[in-house]
Amino acid sequence: MGKTPNLDSGQLFIGIDGGGTKCRARIFSADDKVLGTGVGGPANPLHGQSQAKASILQAVEMALTEAGLPNSSAGKLIAGVGLAGVNLPSLFEVMNSWHHPFKKMYLTTDLHIACLGAHRSDEGAVMIAGTGSCGYSYVNGKATIIGAHGFPFGDKCSGAWIGLEAVKAVLLASDNLGPQTILNDLVGDHLGAKGVMIVDKMGAAKSSDYAQLARFVLEAADQNDEVAVKIMREGADYMSAVAEKLWETGPGRMSLIGGLSGRLTPWLKPGIAASLSNPISQPEFGAVYFAKQQYALE
Amino acid sequence: MGKTPNLDSGQLFIGIDGGGTKCRARIFSADDKVLGTGVGGPANPLHGQSQAKASILQAVEMALTEAGLPNSSAGKLIAGVGLAGVNLPSLFEVMNSWHHPFKKMYLTTDLHIACLGAHRSDEGAVMIAGTGSCGYSYVNGKATIIGAHGFPFGDKCSGAWIGLEAVKAVLLASDNLGPQTILNDLVGDHLGAKGVMIVDKMGAAKSSDYAQLARFVLEAADQNDEVAVKIMREGADYMSAVAEKLWETGPGRMSLIGGLSGRLTPWLKPGIAASLSNPISQPEFGAVYFAKQQYALE
Repeated sequence: MGKTPNLDSGQLFIGIDGGGTKCRARIFSADDKVLGTGVGGPANPLHGQSQAKASILQAVEMALTEAGLPNSSAGKLIAGVGLAGVNLPSLFEVMNSWHHPFKKMYLTTDLHIACLGAHRSDEGAVMIAGTGSCGYSYVNGKATIIGAHGFPFGDKCSGAWIGLEAVKAVLLASDNLGPQTILNDLVGDHLGAKGVMIVDKMGAAKSSDYAQLARFVLEAADQNDEVAVKIMREGADYMSAVAEKLWETGPGRMSLIGGLSGRLTPWLKPGIAASLSNPISQPEFGAVYFAKQQYALE
Repeated sequence: MGKTPNLDSGQLFIGIDGGGTKCRARIFSADDKVLGTGVGGPANPLHGQSQAKASILQAVEMALTEAGLPNSSAGKLIAGVGLAGVNLPSLFEVMNSWHHPFKKMYLTTDLHIACLGAHRSDEGAVMIAGTGSCGYSYVNGKATIIGAHGFPFGDKCSGAWIGLEAVKAVLLASDNLGPQTILNDLVGDHLGAKGVMIVDKMGAAKSSDYAQLARFVLEAADQNDEVAVKIMREGADYMSAVAEKLWETGPGRMSLIGGLSGRLTPWLKPGIAASLSNPISQPEFGAVYFAKQQYALE
């Protein structure tokens, strides 16, 4: 990435990627060497600003420790922070006015840092399929976000969406109002409850709990289970449509990232699957890339 | 309903109907005259046992006051209590072992008391379409429950389900990944936010918040909005299938009840709509009917 003007070569950076399930922080030297990594809890401020801040601090402390630095060193770090949820202006304001412990903090979305990291370039597109889902492109200084709406109303084809569809299908089958499916056994064994009794287990489930069920849908779909295939087909068709919209913005490169990316790719339309490039770096690197850009502008 | 053996003719009864949105209590004399009515908050123990108990007590106090009775009179009442959620054995146990303030308490499901009330008979069937949805029949001492699984994985065709489908459709349309719909304006005006900005408003929404949106889907469907018609058609086809399953149990009479029942009936299959009877009494009456049955058996 090269040197940023006006920066001491001893300046340290921290890249923070905060999502709905967990938060990862990584400390980099000025020449992009990783010095330490830390992980914290959920950091989407839509689901709790205090929790998000606590998760970030948890990840930062762990990364400092791994880098052999005292906690007080946070004040020397320039932080790039990408958070889920801050595409909503109200949440951006709240998190951006946080009395953070860093020397400087530059805030953007988790999507933006994922894109910068995946392509090591200012331009590109990413689709994310993990606990949540969305599409994002950044071209000519303009961000395009598709989806990223959250659970349960958005995030089609995410792990949470796939898991929710699985629970719906198992319950319909248990009433003989939908086709029978091996998801009944797969999901039931995982939850330790069968048929209607899974209601008891999922009554207070969060999106991350639903996402735990996605792998059973993938497994059942591999066995040609009609219900699972239909869920995967509907989800993947949506992601293919997202990819088509993103290509229209002219991003040059596009990557599919997130925990489901490997298993999901074969379900995409063949032309879409073939158009995807492997991500080059992780989002935390993208966060530092962003911080250096912003710092240089000041 | 006639007299129950072994009962003082001055014995008072209280019928309690506790659902996910509110709880209603009604005090009856031994000859079925209503003496007072009270309303409390949500009373589905699946969403919080303490809240459910507090809501019941709130409704009881209000009913006692309206009946001109002191709070201490609760100890003289025989209570019939029908609660959402207690079809799950774990929740039945928790609520049934409650140190309630009544002389006697007889607990069953909200579905059972709705059915007893609708038909003033031990046998019959009801479909409920309000904040939640389900089907229930009671024939020859055997209960059949269809649905009643809860939000967001069950309760198809409920107000909450209709509202969630509306939010999903508005968000897909805002990304140009689904058909345009007048729900964008109708839901947007109600929430004070358009397109993707409704995410901010619905981020922490409960099933009752989603159910508030159902009337806009009905309104849009009346105007032949493609998206709204599709939601109503899918929901109503499910309810028609539920009705067919219930008729197979031989209930004699069936009623559709709940806040959506009037608007939903025209969407059902014509033969199903024509097969429905008006409910005779409200669930609180059914709860007292149940309590008298159980008391007579002791």
